[in-house]
Amino acid sequence: MLNFSFHLPTQFEFGTGAERKAGEMIARFGGKRALVHYGGGSAVRSGLLARVLESLDAAGIAHVELGGVMPNPRDELVYQGIQMVRDQQLDFILAIGGGSSIDSGKAIAAGALYDGDFWDFFCGKALPETALPLGCILTIAAAGSESSNSCVITQASTQQKRGLNVELNRPRFALMNPELTYTLPAYQTAAGATDIMAHVMERYFSNEPESDVTDRLCEAILCSVVKAAPIAIENPNDYDSHAQLMWASTIAHNNTCGVGRVFDGASHKIEHELSGIYDVAHGAGLAVVFPAWLRWQLTHHEPSKLVQFAVRVWGCDIDLGHPERCAMQGIERYEAFLRSIGMPLTLRELGIENPDIQRIADGTRRNPGTDVCGFFTPMDTAAIVELLQIANG
Amino acid sequence: MLNFSFHLPTQFEFGTGAERKAGEMIARFGGKRALVHYGGGSAVRSGLLARVLESLDAAGIAHVELGGVMPNPRDELVYQGIQMVRDQQLDFILAIGGGSSIDSGKAIAAGALYDGDFWDFFCGKALPETALPLGCILTIAAAGSESSNSCVITQASTQQKRGLNVELNRPRFALMNPELTYTLPAYQTAAGATDIMAHVMERYFSNEPESDVTDRLCEAILCSVVKAAPIAIENPNDYDSHAQLMWASTIAHNNTCGVGRVFDGASHKIEHELSGIYDVAHGAGLAVVFPAWLRWQLTHHEPSKLVQFAVRVWGCDIDLGHPERCAMQGIERYEAFLRSIGMPLTLRELGIENPDIQRIADGTRRNPGTDVCGFFTPMDTAAIVELLQIANG
Repeated sequence: MLNFSFHLPTQFEFGTGAERKAGEMIARFGGKRALVHYGGGSAVRSGLLARVLESLDAAGIAHVELGGVMPNPRDELVYQGIQMVRDQQLDFILAIGGGSSIDSGKAIAAGALYDGDFWDFFCGKALPETALPLGCILTIAAAGSESSNSCVITQASTQQKRGLNVELNRPRFALMNPELTYTLPAYQTAAGATDIMAHVMERYFSNEPESDVTDRLCEAILCSVVKAAPIAIENPNDYDSHAQLMWASTIAHNNTCGVGRVFDGASHKIEHELSGIYDVAHGAGLAVVFPAWLRWQLTHHEPSKLVQFAVRVWGCDIDLGHPERCAMQGIERYEAFLRSIGMPLTLRELGIENPDIQRIADGTRRNPGTDVCGFFTPMDTAAIVELLQIANG
Repeated sequence: MLNFSFHLPTQFEFGTGAERKAGEMIARFGGKRALVHYGGGSAVRSGLLARVLESLDAAGIAHVELGGVMPNPRDELVYQGIQMVRDQQLDFILAIGGGSSIDSGKAIAAGALYDGDFWDFFCGKALPETALPLGCILTIAAAGSESSNSCVITQASTQQKRGLNVELNRPRFALMNPELTYTLPAYQTAAGATDIMAHVMERYFSNEPESDVTDRLCEAILCSVVKAAPIAIENPNDYDSHAQLMWASTIAHNNTCGVGRVFDGASHKIEHELSGIYDVAHGAGLAVVFPAWLRWQLTHHEPSKLVQFAVRVWGCDIDLGHPERCAMQGIERYEAFLRSIGMPLTLRELGIENPDIQRIADGTRRNPGTDVCGFFTPMDTAAIVELLQIANG
């Protein structure tokens, strides 16, 4: 177990009606003039935005709206938000939505207090030293951005999707009402579940030999998602399964499951390149990349951790004589699960007919910090090409 | 799953040498003059105190020492600490030790800023509105006080051991070096492991039907403790097993394992009465009370949660026709585990030859907030007497 620092400052308000606390919470964290940042029209149509603005009005919080965040959020809207914050002297960002809205809000929060171009933070030129406070109202269980230190933005002109992981990114509060996820299409719930599992697995597959507590916390979240996701998809109005997914999404990516070891991150980096270029849903991209990553690892890494994954998460029988068979059975059950919830497993099923594999691999390696891509077995460009060939079916 | 608020502000610095960050961390949280509060001579003899004071000196933090905290910490030293804070205008409490030192420090931190008698907080007369900031250096994995909202103090004159659970109690930082637990006697390591498990089980046995994520997190911690404790006891200098116990102690009691449902608390309340009167080690007292609580529950509560505990934590086989047999097997394995690490299972083994069962039961019910004692099956005075008779062997 490696030495670690861990600090999770986000205040969680979880349950029915949580969104109505928005005004009170912004006031508690010193906000007076908020940028309310959200995605498409669903927040408007569902009445959520109106409820939130009412809560802000009741608390005396002035507000300006900036909607239109797209999946794989783009830099253009971040620039627009930064300008609005400066022009109208806003002092708080309230993001409504999933990872896209929250990440876009995080980039605005850091960029608004920076003299240079906010993209400097995402291409490795600079690190933010301060940021506006940000709170969020979560509407999809997936990215874990509601309490993570992560933020991922795509530069439209170059199709580069890049991440910034700094403690300043953690929201001050997260309002989490599972009912807000009832109206999501099944595909998005499934992609969210896939993303949650991937966040855990990026931490689980580590070469640190002894971090049993963290291992078991990872397995706990994986088992819960495997149980809850099909129920939530079958029963869009089932509170409990949606509540499990929502809380799992948070724990999966705020590093409760990662302390004491390194985040592998290879699958996420490869998927970011994929969705930067082809604009696919992040979770669906991970459903293609992560099984391929596991299959590639099985031929390059001794199998004991893959065996533990197979036995503890997927209920596979131990096979002392052929541990690699047990490990492969775990991968196959993971794939069967992903397929059962409607996820693609190949690039073609993801809608990418003629993937430019070399471009994806090269682009992944140009991502700042990917002189080594991953840590479980580090991947060079040729290895990423091999992985993508597996993913190409 | 019940609605919940969850906020864990404690900053964790975990690993070798963590105690050397004390000065830097106090400065970060605005402290300039610290009360350094610790227990017996072991912190002095081991050189820990000297290292910590050196770190404070290097950071320019003035300091005053108050040692002598005893297990089941008493009100006298709290009064003394409050007086020292006031006389010497101290602005930060640094507790070194386990739950006793940290709890004593928490009581000083809240009491120093209160005009009345600090015991008002513990007998239900008042709630603290503010408290001095407190940080801690942990030397035993047990109480979880390093990030919990709990604080338990014994009033010497009445032998009343009472708790105060408020968010103000959470430490600002916890410095956690597993090596500091190497020198503990095996009995204390075992009592600590028992306490950790009890903190999880108080949350696990809940009537909330659907909180699968939290259930599995509980099971994860329980399984890790069952694995690590015997290794740590056999191998006092084994870093990894001590690290698992230390991190488990934190997660077990900071409510990561409890969100979305109620803390039962009956076993802790009964044990507090027991150790208030007979001054036994808290963890050892729980080793006597908790199995008896489970046995009592098995005859008063439908067995499904006890079955889940038996199957998932203790590897018992499901018995659809006789679930109560499966549940009982789980309890027996828990008892066998406790015995294997050297814990007592009866009041006599705990050293209490002629327990005044009625006094313990009556005293438990006089504890503020125990008009109902526990929630899984609430216990009245007669029920507590029955439990203690089970514990009496």
